[in-house]
Amino acid sequence: MIIGIVGLGLIGGSLGLDLRSQGHRVLGVSRKPGTCERAIARGIADDASVSPSFLRQAEVVFVCTPLGVMETAVDEIVPYLSADAVLTDVGSLKGWVMQAIAPKWANFVGGHPMAGTAESGIEAAQRELFINCAYVLTPMATTPPEVVQRVEDLARSLQSHVYICSPEEHDRAVAWISHLPVMVSASLISACLSEADKPVLELAKKLASSGFRDTSRVGGGNPELGVMMAKYNQEALLRSLYAYREQLDQAIAQIEQSDWATLDHHLQATQHHRPNFMQ
Amino acid sequence: MIIGIVGLGLIGGSLGLDLRSQGHRVLGVSRKPGTCERAIARGIADDASVSPSFLRQAEVVFVCTPLGVMETAVDEIVPYLSADAVLTDVGSLKGWVMQAIAPKWANFVGGHPMAGTAESGIEAAQRELFINCAYVLTPMATTPPEVVQRVEDLARSLQSHVYICSPEEHDRAVAWISHLPVMVSASLISACLSEADKPVLELAKKLASSGFRDTSRVGGGNPELGVMMAKYNQEALLRSLYAYREQLDQAIAQIEQSDWATLDHHLQATQHHRPNFMQ
Repeated sequence: MIIGIVGLGLIGGSLGLDLRSQGHRVLGVSRKPGTCERAIARGIADDASVSPSFLRQAEVVFVCTPLGVMETAVDEIVPYLSADAVLTDVGSLKGWVMQAIAPKWANFVGGHPMAGTAESGIEAAQRELFINCAYVLTPMATTPPEVVQRVEDLARSLQSHVYICSPEEHDRAVAWISHLPVMVSASLISACLSEADKPVLELAKKLASSGFRDTSRVGGGNPELGVMMAKYNQEALLRSLYAYREQLDQAIAQIEQSDWATLDHHLQATQHHRPNFMQ
Repeated sequence: MIIGIVGLGLIGGSLGLDLRSQGHRVLGVSRKPGTCERAIARGIADDASVSPSFLRQAEVVFVCTPLGVMETAVDEIVPYLSADAVLTDVGSLKGWVMQAIAPKWANFVGGHPMAGTAESGIEAAQRELFINCAYVLTPMATTPPEVVQRVEDLARSLQSHVYICSPEEHDRAVAWISHLPVMVSASLISACLSEADKPVLELAKKLASSGFRDTSRVGGGNPELGVMMAKYNQEALLRSLYAYREQLDQAIAQIEQSDWATLDHHLQATQHHRPNFMQ
């Protein structure tokens, strides 16, 4: 198959490495000539260009740019696509993508491969990044089934676990397990930093160990990503934050009232149910 | 030196292994005859007994029982201690210990070796558990300096980093970096579980990966420990929880108002400052 990849960062680059190694011909597009050269040198693409004109050969095109430039990128490539080309994206929010991108191309299906590393950019691209990762597809009622099937087959060929759901279900689910944790964790760091008693703050920094390290990890991550989540998933994230604040207030009330039995019951439940999120 | 260890679980047992390997004579006390036998078999103690009477030989005694039985344990051993014996504990809260335990023995100094594993009990005891861990000592103004020195020397011999502070400073610091994270993390799990839309909850469970795993880890831990923290460190924990709720409310307001510049500024700060807690 001839596959186009627009945006050659961590995800686009890793897709290229795996798809080429399966025997597909990969055409890469990047705004930067240097990235195009690196894509060829690293074996990410058979050919790469700053101009999308060669995408007229492509049967499937993955849009792997950041969400902020995705509309522009799609507007630039759509005039070159052959009529039956399948278009998909790898954006981490799907409601916005389905509104902004889907109307631009009938054979479009939204996708979200849930893989990543702490690094980004073409040098971070790696083989087998998607093995055992979730790969969510969010077709609309009007999406032709063979379009979904084509992207699903490619996702399975990467050894990802494919889930098909509505864009709203996707966005609510990732609000819980990905976006809410960032805000919860960042608020932990800023709460600690609000300690006005200097010796206590300095001691806290010295005593912090694995518990603090793990709970604060995603809150100390890339600020740009955090803002992107909030911006493109505002409604679902707020919904999760309100539910979170309610749970936090209940815990505070239990501690204020020395209601240890209820607090114990609550912590028993979280201990019991957490493994269901770890499968 | 002849060293007594009362309570032969993870911490007491690990102390015994290291102190014996340094050539000290270790006398272990446990309520359970089986644990005494295991302590001798595992090389944790030279001698072990359910009766504390042989502690009259001990120069330093570590009380390593859970906080809930510490008062009883100390009441039982104090009649047997020689007048110049040094008494210390390993409890994870120090304000309560200094109120409840310190008045029972003049040569007492509170201690908190901040080491642990996910396991507990004598079988979890291991050599070199305390290497590079923080070991906090919380003497009072009336504590004889040579008493502090003696415990400090032993802590350093375990290759721990010794910090000396007031019980209040200790409890506020651990509220930030140990107890607050548990409540923050547990509330994350219960918030997710509050999702009433079944398919969304099931999808969230399937999509959860490292970010959720890390942020939820301490909230899915031992409920007994969580309740203990809240019970024995109620004031400092509530103080931290109120500050946390304020930070959370600020993040919520920024997202409600689409104030991405301030949210970005906030996440830049958490990214910037987190490494100071990781030294």
